[in-house]
Amino acid sequence: MTPRFSVWGITGLPEIAPHDDLVTLIADAVATQSVADPDLALKSGDILVVTSKIVSKSENMLVPASEREQAIAADTVRVVAERVHPGGTFKIVETRQGLVMAAAGIDMSNVPEGLALRLPADPDASARKLCAGLRETLGIDIGIIITDTIGRAWRVGQTDMAIGSAGVQLTDDLRGANDANGRPLHVTQAVIADEIAGAADLVKGKTSGIPVAVVRGLARFVTDLDAPGARSLTRTGDDDMFRFGSAEAYRLGYEAALAEAKSKSVKQD
Amino acid sequence: MTPRFSVWGITGLPEIAPHDDLVTLIADAVATQSVADPDLALKSGDILVVTSKIVSKSENMLVPASEREQAIAADTVRVVAERVHPGGTFKIVETRQGLVMAAAGIDMSNVPEGLALRLPADPDASARKLCAGLRETLGIDIGIIITDTIGRAWRVGQTDMAIGSAGVQLTDDLRGANDANGRPLHVTQAVIADEIAGAADLVKGKTSGIPVAVVRGLARFVTDLDAPGARSLTRTGDDDMFRFGSAEAYRLGYEAALAEAKSKSVKQD
Repeated sequence: MTPRFSVWGITGLPEIAPHDDLVTLIADAVATQSVADPDLALKSGDILVVTSKIVSKSENMLVPASEREQAIAADTVRVVAERVHPGGTFKIVETRQGLVMAAAGIDMSNVPEGLALRLPADPDASARKLCAGLRETLGIDIGIIITDTIGRAWRVGQTDMAIGSAGVQLTDDLRGANDANGRPLHVTQAVIADEIAGAADLVKGKTSGIPVAVVRGLARFVTDLDAPGARSLTRTGDDDMFRFGSAEAYRLGYEAALAEAKSKSVKQD
Repeated sequence: MTPRFSVWGITGLPEIAPHDDLVTLIADAVATQSVADPDLALKSGDILVVTSKIVSKSENMLVPASEREQAIAADTVRVVAERVHPGGTFKIVETRQGLVMAAAGIDMSNVPEGLALRLPADPDASARKLCAGLRETLGIDIGIIITDTIGRAWRVGQTDMAIGSAGVQLTDDLRGANDANGRPLHVTQAVIADEIAGAADLVKGKTSGIPVAVVRGLARFVTDLDAPGARSLTRTGDDDMFRFGSAEAYRLGYEAALAEAKSKSVKQD
C-alpha cells in the first residue's frame, strides 16, 4: 500500500477581526467549499493548519504600529542575538512562548494600516480551544496546528513551524526503534508537526489570503485533545547550545576574563 | 480554485548498492507501481524527493564503521559546537557541503552492518544527474530534491531539509511583494524546498524503507535544470550570527581578553 496524503487550502474566509469566532467562520467556509466539491468536507483524521495571524487577530493581539518596539520588549524573555544595521537593530529573541525568532514574532504584514500584531499569548491554549470547538461543532476528531514563519540558524529564509497544537502527535519518536535492516536508528525524533506546518505553507503562502489548510491522510497522528502542545518542541535553557549569538557569547567571555583579571589585580595591590 | 497538492511514496525500490543506477531503478519502481494505479505514473511538474542515503549508497560513500571518526574529520570544514558526554563527544560541524549538522551527516542507520555512510560529496551535482536522467528516460520535466535529516537550533528533534536539488525553485522570494492588503511583506523568503523536503518525510519516514516520494501539484516550482541548487540555501560566513556555539564563542572571547591582558602586562614590564 502506497502511503499518501494531500493538502489543500480553505478558501473564502473573511478578513478576521477581534473577537471573531474562528470555529464558526472555519466551519462555514468549509461548508461553502464542500458544496462545489464534497470531498473537501472535513473528516475525522484531518489536520487543520492555521496561520497564527488569524488567531492573533481573533484574540485582539493588535497594537498601534507606533508601540511596536514596546510590544517586542514586552514579549521578549531575553535577547539571543542582535545586529545593528542602518535602519535600526535586528534582534533575535526568546519570546514568552519559548520561541527563538526575530522581533518576538511581531509583524506588520497582512495587518490593517497603522497596526502591528503580536503572537497569540498561549498558542497551545488557542489550539485546544479551536480544536475542541471544531470537534464539537462538526462531530469529528480533527487535529489543529497553529503556525508561524520562523528563520533558522545556518539556513537562508524562513519556513513555517508549529507554535501551537492540539489533538496532534508532534514527533515520531524513533529512539529505540530499528531501521529497515533491524539496526538501531541514530536519528531519533522526527518533528512531524513542523513538517506538517511547512507542507501547509505550500498552499497557504503569504500573498494568497488563504490562512488555513487541511492535511488529509495523516490520521495516525491525530490524538486526544490533551496531547502535549507545540510548546514542548521548543528547546531553551541548558539544553540549548546556541543560547546566545556568537558575538554576544564572545563578549560575555571577554568581559568575564577582564573582570577576573581586574579582581586578581585588586587582590595583588 | 482551491490550491492543492498530494504526496506519496514510491514503493518497491530494492536495497541500493554501490554503482546502482538510480534513474533506472526509480523509473522501474514507478512503472511497476503505476500498473496497479495509473495515477502514480510520473507527470511533468512532479517533484521527486529522494533520501540522500540512497544517493550516497549508489555513489559508494560507504566507509568501515571503524573509520567513522576519520570520515567525520574529513567531511568537517570547522567545528561549530561540541559537548562531551559519557559516550563520547557530540559535535555539530559545518560540512564540506555547507551544512551545519551533527557528526558531519555520517550515519550508521539503514546501512549494512559494519559500515557507515557519508553524505554525497556534491548533492546538487547528484540531483542534476538524477534529474537529467529521469527527464530523458521518461520524457517529462520533473524536479529533484535530495534530503537529509537535520537538527535545528532552539527546537527539539530533526526535520528533513533540502541538501541537493535540480530543476526546482528553492524559495518563494517575497522581498518587495505585497500582502493581501497591498502592504509590503516583512517576511521575505519562504524556503519551499525545505517545506517540500519535510512534507515528503511524512510518507518516507525512517522505518518504512521508502526512500523516494513524489509531490504532485507544485508544478509552478519546477524549473530548468540549471536553476541554483540547494547549496544556495546554506548560510555560512559573516552572515551567520551563530557561527559558534555559545560555550565556544564565550571561550574565544575569554581567551582573547587574557591574551590582550598578557600582552599589555608584558609591555608594562
